[in-house]
Amino acid sequence: MIENEYAFSIEMEVRDYECDLQGVVNNANYQHYLEHARHQFLLSKGISFAGLHTEGVDLIVTRVEIDYKYPLRSRDRFVVKLNIRRKGNIRLLFEQAIFRVPDWKTVVQAEVTGVAIRNGRPVPPGNLVSQLGI
Amino acid sequence: MIENEYAFSIEMEVRDYECDLQGVVNNANYQHYLEHARHQFLLSKGISFAGLHTEGVDLIVTRVEIDYKYPLRSRDRFVVKLNIRRKGNIRLLFEQAIFRVPDWKTVVQAEVTGVAIRNGRPVPPGNLVSQLGI
Amino acid sequence: MIENEYAFSIEMEVRDYECDLQGVVNNANYQHYLEHARHQFLLSKGISFAGLHTEGVDLIVTRVEIDYKYPLRSRDRFVVKLNIRRKGNIRLLFEQAIFRVPDWKTVVQAEVTGVAIRNGRPVPPGNLVSQLGI
Amino acid sequence: MIENEYAFSIEMEVRDYECDLQGVVNNANYQHYLEHARHQFLLSKGISFAGLHTEGVDLIVTRVEIDYKYPLRSRDRFVVKLNIRRKGNIRLLFEQAIFRVPDWKTVVQAEVTGVAIRNGRPVPPGNLVSQLGI
Repeated sequence: MIENEYAFSIEMEVRDYECDLQGVVNNANYQHYLEHARHQFLLSKGISFAGLHTEGVDLIVTRVEIDYKYPLRSRDRFVVKLNIRRKGNIRLLFEQAIFRVPDWKTVVQAEVTGVAIRNGRPVPPGNLVSQLGI
Repeated sequence: MIENEYAFSIEMEVRDYECDLQGVVNNANYQHYLEHARHQFLLSKGISFAGLHTEGVDLIVTRVEIDYKYPLRSRDRFVVKLNIRRKGNIRLLFEQAIFRVPDWKTVVQAEVTGVAIRNGRPVPPGNLVSQLGI
Repeated sequence: MIENEYAFSIEMEVRDYECDLQGVVNNANYQHYLEHARHQFLLSKGISFAGLHTEGVDLIVTRVEIDYKYPLRSRDRFVVKLNIRRKGNIRLLFEQAIFRVPDWKTVVQAEVTGVAIRNGRPVPPGNLVSQLGI
Repeated sequence: MIENEYAFSIEMEVRDYECDLQGVVNNANYQHYLEHARHQFLLSKGISFAGLHTEGVDLIVTRVEIDYKYPLRSRDRFVVKLNIRRKGNIRLLFEQAIFRVPDWKTVVQAEVTGVAIRNGRPVPPGNLVSQLGI
């Protein structure tokens, strides 16, 4: 999948504290980048992760698959992109990728599955789906 | 202040992801170590940071002074120590230090001031103080 | 796979700063737990992640699959377990799981693929494999 | 000190993963914000923290004083500001503050002392000082 086939994109920059003793961004921080892009996407659709939590609905991740293709280093700029689609009745699937800019080197490709839960149980994402237009 | 003059002590070990591109523990992580020691100390007195939050009381830090004396590196073991005392009617003061083990090199010395708040306002730490015996 | 079929195990405890605004451990921190267990396992075999970096060899993760089964909360104790095996000529595969203790609730199941690189290129893990006995 | 008396400013936004179980930004993350602003300031003067490390010079923090005035929450935007001046022959002092935008509420005030070290020993910051124009 190439870089202009995504529905949402956010540009970010590596902060030095995100790099580990190998001098590259620590693996776990890519999950932070991917999460931040998902939350910003939801906000762009009027859906607040923190606000939902206050209302008793938590969006949670049930599975991630991440391929690490190329490491980011101090000061690198990059974009995090995503598509979203339904997966069965309950789950939402985010297809995400991170590209370094300006050379569009693929850094990470990821699939992230999520569900909405209330009182610890999955709930159909009806309202979310209509807000998301998917 | 020498290492055996503290009321509470917890031993920990550097995890590789806590080191940054200089190969030493990133400054912010020492605050995590100091916080974890404070919370474990409170638990040893029957006080849960997370439990208090659920009851509407948040323990917050209002000021830190941290002297960084010597850096920790991958695999280093260390102890975080603390004393606690009252500071006026509202505030609690933690005197903390981190020592590398087994050579007792001083890593960090810190003073951390905290207050209890409810609905955004400081409350006298009466119950806490009696539980803490200070 | 049940909890006693793993070759290595390390016990840890949730620290409050690892929890996010939902009150549960943030997804990215499970990657930290998994990484820490891998590095401790390697150390138990005489292999230092930081030491290898100094010698010009970096162990890097090329792919993770993580199923999030049940969230950890403040103060939870847990064990991180792993098996390791070869995957082709170049790659190492870690099968990992996190169980809450003492009730052995499955928290996370993960497969983590890694390679050793030198000067940016994968190298056969011959020395590592013999040290690891796999 | 008011918000327009600083030599450098960078605008940032709270990311959800930076909040802890109290729903506010965890104390340690403000150190990340302050560090990121210092490094961006140095870059604006042609000085790279990561680059210096590669050349054998590490800029390290020897002391921080941080007053936490008001907490940041999910989605808050803020600016991190700083002034720099010499402190004796060896040390550099950063006066920093974080303000929430757009209401300019003071979030954090901080003083951060740093030195340059080579081979573990402080070195006079002559080159840095001339590049910084202080």
